[in-house]
Amino acid sequence: MDARGIEALLRAVRAGELSVADATRRLKASPPFADLGFATVDHHRVLRQGHPEIVFAPGKRPDQAAAIAREILDRAGRVLVTRVDGAQARAILDLIPEAEHQTTARTVAVMESDAERAPGVAIVSAGTADQRVAEEVRVTCRFLGFEPDWLVDVGVAGIHRLLDRQEVLHRARVVVVVAGMEGALASVVGGLVGVPVVAVPTSVGYGTGLGGLAALLSMLNSCASNVCCVNIDNGVGAGVVASLIRRNEPGSFFR
Amino acid sequence: MDARGIEALLRAVRAGELSVADATRRLKASPPFADLGFATVDHHRVLRQGHPEIVFAPGKRPDQAAAIAREILDRAGRVLVTRVDGAQARAILDLIPEAEHQTTARTVAVMESDAERAPGVAIVSAGTADQRVAEEVRVTCRFLGFEPDWLVDVGVAGIHRLLDRQEVLHRARVVVVVAGMEGALASVVGGLVGVPVVAVPTSVGYGTGLGGLAALLSMLNSCASNVCCVNIDNGVGAGVVASLIRRNEPGSFFR
Amino acid sequence: MDARGIEALLRAVRAGELSVADATRRLKASPPFADLGFATVDHHRVLRQGHPEIVFAPGKRPDQAAAIAREILDRAGRVLVTRVDGAQARAILDLIPEAEHQTTARTVAVMESDAERAPGVAIVSAGTADQRVAEEVRVTCRFLGFEPDWLVDVGVAGIHRLLDRQEVLHRARVVVVVAGMEGALASVVGGLVGVPVVAVPTSVGYGTGLGGLAALLSMLNSCASNVCCVNIDNGVGAGVVASLIRRNEPGSFFR
Amino acid sequence: MDARGIEALLRAVRAGELSVADATRRLKASPPFADLGFATVDHHRVLRQGHPEIVFAPGKRPDQAAAIAREILDRAGRVLVTRVDGAQARAILDLIPEAEHQTTARTVAVMESDAERAPGVAIVSAGTADQRVAEEVRVTCRFLGFEPDWLVDVGVAGIHRLLDRQEVLHRARVVVVVAGMEGALASVVGGLVGVPVVAVPTSVGYGTGLGGLAALLSMLNSCASNVCCVNIDNGVGAGVVASLIRRNEPGSFFR
Amino acid sequence: MDARGIEALLRAVRAGELSVADATRRLKASPPFADLGFATVDHHRVLRQGHPEIVFAPGKRPDQAAAIAREILDRAGRVLVTRVDGAQARAILDLIPEAEHQTTARTVAVMESDAERAPGVAIVSAGTADQRVAEEVRVTCRFLGFEPDWLVDVGVAGIHRLLDRQEVLHRARVVVVVAGMEGALASVVGGLVGVPVVAVPTSVGYGTGLGGLAALLSMLNSCASNVCCVNIDNGVGAGVVASLIRRNEPGSFFR
Amino acid sequence: MDARGIEALLRAVRAGELSVADATRRLKASPPFADLGFATVDHHRVLRQGHPEIVFAPGKRPDQAAAIAREILDRAGRVLVTRVDGAQARAILDLIPEAEHQTTARTVAVMESDAERAPGVAIVSAGTADQRVAEEVRVTCRFLGFEPDWLVDVGVAGIHRLLDRQEVLHRARVVVVVAGMEGALASVVGGLVGVPVVAVPTSVGYGTGLGGLAALLSMLNSCASNVCCVNIDNGVGAGVVASLIRRNEPGSFFR
Amino acid sequence: MDARGIEALLRAVRAGELSVADATRRLKASPPFADLGFATVDHHRVLRQGHPEIVFAPGKRPDQAAAIAREILDRAGRVLVTRVDGAQARAILDLIPEAEHQTTARTVAVMESDAERAPGVAIVSAGTADQRVAEEVRVTCRFLGFEPDWLVDVGVAGIHRLLDRQEVLHRARVVVVVAGMEGALASVVGGLVGVPVVAVPTSVGYGTGLGGLAALLSMLNSCASNVCCVNIDNGVGAGVVASLIRRNEPGSFFR
Amino acid sequence: MDARGIEALLRAVRAGELSVADATRRLKASPPFADLGFATVDHHRVLRQGHPEIVFAPGKRPDQAAAIAREILDRAGRVLVTRVDGAQARAILDLIPEAEHQTTARTVAVMESDAERAPGVAIVSAGTADQRVAEEVRVTCRFLGFEPDWLVDVGVAGIHRLLDRQEVLHRARVVVVVAGMEGALASVVGGLVGVPVVAVPTSVGYGTGLGGLAALLSMLNSCASNVCCVNIDNGVGAGVVASLIRRNEPGSFFR
Repeated sequence: MDARGIEALLRAVRAGELSVADATRRLKASPPFADLGFATVDHHRVLRQGHPEIVFAPGKRPDQAAAIAREILDRAGRVLVTRVDGAQARAILDLIPEAEHQTTARTVAVMESDAERAPGVAIVSAGTADQRVAEEVRVTCRFLGFEPDWLVDVGVAGIHRLLDRQEVLHRARVVVVVAGMEGALASVVGGLVGVPVVAVPTSVGYGTGLGGLAALLSMLNSCASNVCCVNIDNGVGAGVVASLIRRNEPGSFFR
Repeated sequence: MDARGIEALLRAVRAGELSVADATRRLKASPPFADLGFATVDHHRVLRQGHPEIVFAPGKRPDQAAAIAREILDRAGRVLVTRVDGAQARAILDLIPEAEHQTTARTVAVMESDAERAPGVAIVSAGTADQRVAEEVRVTCRFLGFEPDWLVDVGVAGIHRLLDRQEVLHRARVVVVVAGMEGALASVVGGLVGVPVVAVPTSVGYGTGLGGLAALLSMLNSCASNVCCVNIDNGVGAGVVASLIRRNEPGSFFR
Repeated sequence: MDARGIEALLRAVRAGELSVADATRRLKASPPFADLGFATVDHHRVLRQGHPEIVFAPGKRPDQAAAIAREILDRAGRVLVTRVDGAQARAILDLIPEAEHQTTARTVAVMESDAERAPGVAIVSAGTADQRVAEEVRVTCRFLGFEPDWLVDVGVAGIHRLLDRQEVLHRARVVVVVAGMEGALASVVGGLVGVPVVAVPTSVGYGTGLGGLAALLSMLNSCASNVCCVNIDNGVGAGVVASLIRRNEPGSFFR
Repeated sequence: MDARGIEALLRAVRAGELSVADATRRLKASPPFADLGFATVDHHRVLRQGHPEIVFAPGKRPDQAAAIAREILDRAGRVLVTRVDGAQARAILDLIPEAEHQTTARTVAVMESDAERAPGVAIVSAGTADQRVAEEVRVTCRFLGFEPDWLVDVGVAGIHRLLDRQEVLHRARVVVVVAGMEGALASVVGGLVGVPVVAVPTSVGYGTGLGGLAALLSMLNSCASNVCCVNIDNGVGAGVVASLIRRNEPGSFFR
Repeated sequence: MDARGIEALLRAVRAGELSVADATRRLKASPPFADLGFATVDHHRVLRQGHPEIVFAPGKRPDQAAAIAREILDRAGRVLVTRVDGAQARAILDLIPEAEHQTTARTVAVMESDAERAPGVAIVSAGTADQRVAEEVRVTCRFLGFEPDWLVDVGVAGIHRLLDRQEVLHRARVVVVVAGMEGALASVVGGLVGVPVVAVPTSVGYGTGLGGLAALLSMLNSCASNVCCVNIDNGVGAGVVASLIRRNEPGSFFR
Repeated sequence: MDARGIEALLRAVRAGELSVADATRRLKASPPFADLGFATVDHHRVLRQGHPEIVFAPGKRPDQAAAIAREILDRAGRVLVTRVDGAQARAILDLIPEAEHQTTARTVAVMESDAERAPGVAIVSAGTADQRVAEEVRVTCRFLGFEPDWLVDVGVAGIHRLLDRQEVLHRARVVVVVAGMEGALASVVGGLVGVPVVAVPTSVGYGTGLGGLAALLSMLNSCASNVCCVNIDNGVGAGVVASLIRRNEPGSFFR
Repeated sequence: MDARGIEALLRAVRAGELSVADATRRLKASPPFADLGFATVDHHRVLRQGHPEIVFAPGKRPDQAAAIAREILDRAGRVLVTRVDGAQARAILDLIPEAEHQTTARTVAVMESDAERAPGVAIVSAGTADQRVAEEVRVTCRFLGFEPDWLVDVGVAGIHRLLDRQEVLHRARVVVVVAGMEGALASVVGGLVGVPVVAVPTSVGYGTGLGGLAALLSMLNSCASNVCCVNIDNGVGAGVVASLIRRNEPGSFFR
Repeated sequence: MDARGIEALLRAVRAGELSVADATRRLKASPPFADLGFATVDHHRVLRQGHPEIVFAPGKRPDQAAAIAREILDRAGRVLVTRVDGAQARAILDLIPEAEHQTTARTVAVMESDAERAPGVAIVSAGTADQRVAEEVRVTCRFLGFEPDWLVDVGVAGIHRLLDRQEVLHRARVVVVVAGMEGALASVVGGLVGVPVVAVPTSVGYGTGLGGLAALLSMLNSCASNVCCVNIDNGVGAGVVASLIRRNEPGSFFR
């Protein structure tokens, strides 16, 4: 049961449509976590954070990944699994045939079928090779109810590509910048907008790129003070932070 | 001239209260930057980002810091200078007697005198030694129009200190976590709330704390996906990002 | 001959059941080390430390690993080989058919068959992907005579999973925390218990996780002062330290 | 009120010597933490961990350090402040005249006056320059009720200095090794004893010593599997861990 | 004797104005190096590289620095000493009264008095705090015969400051970019011009700026392929490289 | 349309051979960038920098790499793709049959067919294993219109191999040094010549070579002040910088 | 022609057995280096250093490695190629059938057939996994004319294995210590002997072993002052240094 | 009693000049170490290594440094204390008036008064700022009985300074290279000589010099295989290793 389910239940109680005893029974049937032996699935996360636990696949056996996904889907009605490899994707799709596999983003998801997604998030990515991470940001935002705009391949070596299309930036309430190499795009975008910029360094590059550390350091030391960062290649984190910024509601209503 | 000034001017034009010629003249008198010889003050930042350039004092001579502050104050009506040392603070106060020196935060500021500051930002700091940075966050938020709540010294070694007072977290729209040492507080807070968490690692610690790198790495690798980070000890950045999140408006209106 | 064997021998001497000459002969037949050409097996380790040398497999040829295991088993009556790959496991099982291969832990072991294992060690692991290392801790403790409790997948992003089951922590004399990512779990557990916490960072994570360094730094800088650390992924070390803490006897009786 | 106080109170209740109402009132008068404005003193730590919070002085103003020390002393009857500088020491001694200042260890403490301290902890330090950290270990152990043995200046460059006096090691239940430079002493001691070794790297050294990192890495990679580590120069942590190992009781009795 | 002196001498020989014997004698009087006991001054550098050895002052005693400067001045007719502290500057000025001390650049120099300096080098610096390094670039270029243009304080957080004045960039044959923090300015400038960009990272910044490493990594990983780098704060190196690029002559004429 | 095409067009306008209207139409047909969906090809780069965008292949799908190459070739009449793997090379050759695949350099290129390449660039490489990177430098220079000299395998361990052939260095206007291991060759060459030295560290080496970092640090700290650096293995960058140095013209003529 | 060949030639000249003209012709036929196109083989190394260039195979194509080996063998009468992979070994053996492939050491060599190798070098290795590197040391010493003693698997976790056999150390003139993990063995051996200790860190280990950096740092910071180091896994370097120490002759006789 | 004293004693026994009883008594009066409370002076080092313990002063109180020096001098007849600060030097000179203070080397020593020092060690230093470390090498060699040659300030930026004086290198049996910055001198010297090269990186440099790490990495990765390294600024270690190489005797005669 997610936050909206609980709210509906409580309203039904107040309206006298549901007895206290029944409401209690149903809430008890929604335990705070489920012990799968190899995993302790956090069912209360949807209450605390407005969305169910997002599953990080690496290090999990295919059958474990699938079982966790199934458990979450059954309780929360939707599920997102990230960084899946081929075997994990197959195992999940076997167990959850209605799931969709986004291959570039390396995610498997069941989203709300009738979602009308809200605008207000912009994604800006520096190069074609950053596409995998930018796709992960996009899938995550969509999972959380938002439909981002996306400027592709607008790195600072040809800055007119960005300046000519900056109206996309100006109508956003939060901008996610995805960039590898030297990550300078985050500072340039940060200087152009008056909203929070969530910067995602990517591991694109070589040599002193140090697997994304150069881009991260660049972003952390941005001379634009509206830039904050997430881990290298962490498209999910950027998508969650951007969506929560865009949602802009105080925490969760039930604790 | 700041965004509100320009908006007023344009409305006066539309209302026929001001001729186009006069409006043009006034706007021209508001140049995009001022060349002080040793600095190029960015007067359009208030238009792009909703607040004037915040001055980072280190590396500037006292007279340079004061002249830059004066220039900004004259155009924008308010100014914030950060990381001032004693000589810089004195030079600024000499030139701007109405400025206020916050000694713990190491800032000098002229704020809007009649500000009614909005709630919705919470600061959580891990130890008494993190106070300097947390104060910098607070001053920055106040400069930008918000009055944050603050939980002091609630590190995870005695986690009941945080759990017993988490209602402060639940009424916030954004939480700033300030922590040195291992920075675990960011993950714990991230797991408790459903809003964005802006994490500020501090240089508090020793040995393998590596001047704040251990805390930063901890925060970047948080298992809570709603955590984003700024540079070590970067209270200003966290204050700006949190305030922009809290403000939640699309960019700036004039570009 | 291990410590108990020697103790028995000496008691027999004192009781007059064994002549001094015979005892001497038998002890001499128990040389301090065995030279296998490619290895110098330390047979006195069981005397100094109460358990035979634990064999670290990487870098050894399958036949070398098997020969060393055989040599130790013949002298000490039990043996534990860690981090075995498939070829090494097969070679050992060929030479020692009674050995058992724990695939998740990547160990091969002959344990004392009639062991009644003592309680008092608790293992707490942060995520499903940390299971391999936590299993290595468990196998090691069992090899050394202890049967640990284990809380699985109780990372701090959903801290109620840990708080709801903390009675497991409170009946332990030593707690082993196994965590990757930001490793915050060690500090939280450290703050909840009054016994030593042995923290094992794991290489689970990506980007700035730096192969486990972020978790290690977090644990070394813990604000909880009862936390000590071992190397990244070093389940054996944690198991040995925890078992020795739990045993709590002064060193070895024979040197 | 510390653990013993609470135990006495509860026994008095069971014995009928104290009414439930009075016991409740007294327990309520022992709040879980005290809010000093700049600090949240954790009064329940003595219940969870068997000893009051140890105060880490750096970054605290002298008056803050003194006020926190006073608050803890008043509740728990003893207090230990570490890494004090001259001004902090003077401020604490002004407020707590009965405190004692250990200058080499850089600590100020009020210990239990009639303490009979238990044996079983051994400290081994590598060089004269490591003395400051080793003293911090000793003061911490004494504060927690133990009187350690100490082998001074027995680095491996002259290993007979250690081998000739190893009987000190063999009667200990836990050994603390304090070493800078290459930290090899931890492995050598680890190989000689069958008890846990708590290794404290020190910042003694230069160049590639990297402020203690070389010693730490050496200790973390010890080929002796009974070695665990704390942060560089962290004498307090080593003293706490060693004391808890030596005490060997399950956690705290009241939670 | 420098390259021009030697050229003049050889021309005099060819013109019959100087006997071969005299020319030989004079050339021999110009030894390849001078042994000062504590230094071996390289007098042939002017022949190999077109300018005399530039003296790096740190680590030299004031009297040593002065003696080396004197020796070079006597042979080459000009001298540049960099990174001088107060005592070194005084010692050099005592010995060479005609020298000039540039305090911001921390240099002491005797330049060619009648120099008509050539244009074609542009310096772009990111912030006021980068001024010391940019001044060192400028002094070096002037010492080598060029008079650079300089754009001050045009960091990317307000990119219009740079775009509005880019004509300075377009008339240069080489651009030196001086920037600390995240160093993004190098990539942006690199993308705007079709000439070599020599990037100088500065140590301006804090925390993860790592003393200039973040800026250096950013510059080394620039997505603009016309950017090359020198060491952190190495204004001299950038000035030499830029001047040699601008001079554009094959090596030295005498070897 | 590249710079020369535009220049021809403008001359035709001035000569009355082309109407202004036609010229305008043709220029408009040369858009500043092309949106391929997954890439934003920068067609103005040839105007800003004198050569079309060089394509970095890693991270691009074979069909993406080929489509981008085709797009550039169609506009600019030449194209260079670097770091191609086998699949990418095949895809490009399928789409652009006239392209040439340089296997050692890992490049695919269409160069100007009738190019008369200018001398003045010298490449010096330290060992046989550095050949791949040196070849990338050479191909890049050739693509940009220069034919470099090349000294192969002249590392400093046998310095006479370099000294005996230094006349190659002395006729160059810029020298590219390609070296792995300790990279000392850059300093030695830097000391021998009076022109700029562009140093390319390579990832050749092992252990503390740290994938080329040791060579890079050596080059950045060169005691020869005419050395500048590019990223590890960045043959393209070195080729571009060296070619621009050799060309020695102010920027681009059209902006 | 190697040093002995040249010495013989010169003696023949002095003895009148060879005309000066013939000697000159023969010496000229021994050029200082051979240009193979992809390599510049240093034939004078045998004169400068007493042994021909040792070939480092990685990064060379099999046919290149074989051609270089052949060239050296033809001039110097012996050759050593290190770090060969399978393809390289086969190519060399095809071209040089008399060569021998040492598989553990990963070397291919032609040694002097009638060599009587001198004693005086001792190798001490810490674990079975260090064997590959220790074998490389041994092959190198044998190639250079020395037959080392070797103590296998005597790591400090069981220090009696070393102490019981230290007579091997005491008859050596130089000791090579090969150790991974924490590398403590170098310090212990250094403290036991009065001769130079050449320490070779190996990449054996995991996690914070950092591919051998932990062992290297330990060795560089050794409290024994007779320890010097070579690169991680650099068995060849250690073998060369140890052999030159053992040879103890001033440089080469011909330069 | 040092090695020579013991040898004399044993010869007296063999010659019948000393009774076995007296010899035994005298030897017993020479204990293996002296316990000073804060230090355990290793008196057997002179037996194991041929020279008494060299005292490293940092971290020792002046009175401790002086007492340790006195103790060693009394037993061994000579003493060397390194890295002394002013207060330590004064304390030692107060206690040992015959000692000599070498201020550049920062050492205090009592050497053998009638020493005839042997040749065969050469020191080569790169710059004037490296002088402090090179002096420490020289003092150490002199303390151990050797008088080194020294080439000052011959860095590779002007390589003719070294090549013109290489005869100094060719008469040495071991060369010590002292260099900061990029440390290339070690490789160049290594390629010129056929004897062991002991490389000492110094902390001279700035920025990416990283306090000497760049020089160290350069030296460890030297393409010359006869180079070994000691810690940054470790002049003592280099002096000891070079002296032992030069002495070239098997270990110590008494163990």
